[in-house]
Amino acid sequence: MTAPAPSLSGHLANVLLCTDPEKKRFVTREVPEVQVSFEGFVGDRHAGLTRLADVRTPWFPRGTVVRNTRQVSVVSREELTEVAHAMGIPHVMASWLGANLELVGVPRLTHLPPGTRLFFPEEATLVMEGENQPCIHPGRAIEAHHPDLKGLASRFVKAAWQKRGLVGWVERPGLIRAGDEVRVMLPPPVTYSLPAAPVPVAARQEQVA
Amino acid sequence: MTAPAPSLSGHLANVLLCTDPEKKRFVTREVPEVQVSFEGFVGDRHAGLTRLADVRTPWFPRGTVVRNTRQVSVVSREELTEVAHAMGIPHVMASWLGANLELVGVPRLTHLPPGTRLFFPEEATLVMEGENQPCIHPGRAIEAHHPDLKGLASRFVKAAWQKRGLVGWVERPGLIRAGDEVRVMLPPPVTYSLPAAPVPVAARQEQVA
Repeated sequence: MTAPAPSLSGHLANVLLCTDPEKKRFVTREVPEVQVSFEGFVGDRHAGLTRLADVRTPWFPRGTVVRNTRQVSVVSREELTEVAHAMGIPHVMASWLGANLELVGVPRLTHLPPGTRLFFPEEATLVMEGENQPCIHPGRAIEAHHPDLKGLASRFVKAAWQKRGLVGWVERPGLIRAGDEVRVMLPPPVTYSLPAAPVPVAARQEQVA
Repeated sequence: MTAPAPSLSGHLANVLLCTDPEKKRFVTREVPEVQVSFEGFVGDRHAGLTRLADVRTPWFPRGTVVRNTRQVSVVSREELTEVAHAMGIPHVMASWLGANLELVGVPRLTHLPPGTRLFFPEEATLVMEGENQPCIHPGRAIEAHHPDLKGLASRFVKAAWQKRGLVGWVERPGLIRAGDEVRVMLPPPVTYSLPAAPVPVAARQEQVA
């Protein structure tokens, strides 16, 4: 048996949706609450049971229909404050990154392992797939808010490394509201390592000599 | 950047299905191949986009409709040989455990972390959710094959600890055949730990004294 994971919780500062019907914009805007179905956040551009493989899943041919495990994007206010500091700007808004949820109070959010669950008070439960690796698009959104500063877009990728939050999918439908308390449950810790390879005879002899 | 995971592969000794229409039996039987959809293995009793929460998910009220991430059960022939040895019987068949896939050649299969992908030659791709913890039912199936030996059912739970394989779900549909080569891709390694808590002044003084 493994030791129980520490109990973690936080609260939800913001719920955000991207509702551009033409899917040309990825930035999100704040809403007071969202209905959560097995497809994702109702009305958000990333909702769906499946998605088309893209640059995030280079092990599939581009355009392959695969299960959508990137329904929802989650960021940490504390991490975004660190990103802003590293970029030399006052703040980085969750909406500029196209995030759906902005949490406060969960330490090292982006480091939570795959399989971590987020429980919300009104039944909705999300499972985290993994880190959302920074790309240049949010950097461009940030740049658009600071036309006087040069090179912010490319600086974002470095500044946001391991601080850009997580993506995940809906395990249980429900309702999520801004201000909700959020309970975080880590999966059992696992470490995979290959069994030690047998040392070849020649190498053993060298070790002895 | 993290170091790339070692490349792992194995092959598929058996494909098995549980097709009891009344869902009274959980043991599986060998088939030459299986069609794989987003619901799981076509015709298997565990197929479905959703499932009802049970003893495996005690954080949900029993019977809650949740996403089905236990569509498929995967075991390792090498691990089952170890289980049989620990139980003092000649072999433990994958079918007795209700497994759907029996792999050969993937070391320490049950320890593969959540998010591990199994790629098959004809497009099907599975993602592992995590360990399938042993319960007493497969032990009873084993006992039925050895009516002369007493107490096998309860010994199974101990003998199969961390050797009972994994459960997972379909990321990409396709076809899986007995004898297929299987490519295994580990997710990026992650270790989550809480930041060190600031030491209270009183405790610091004790440490100094």
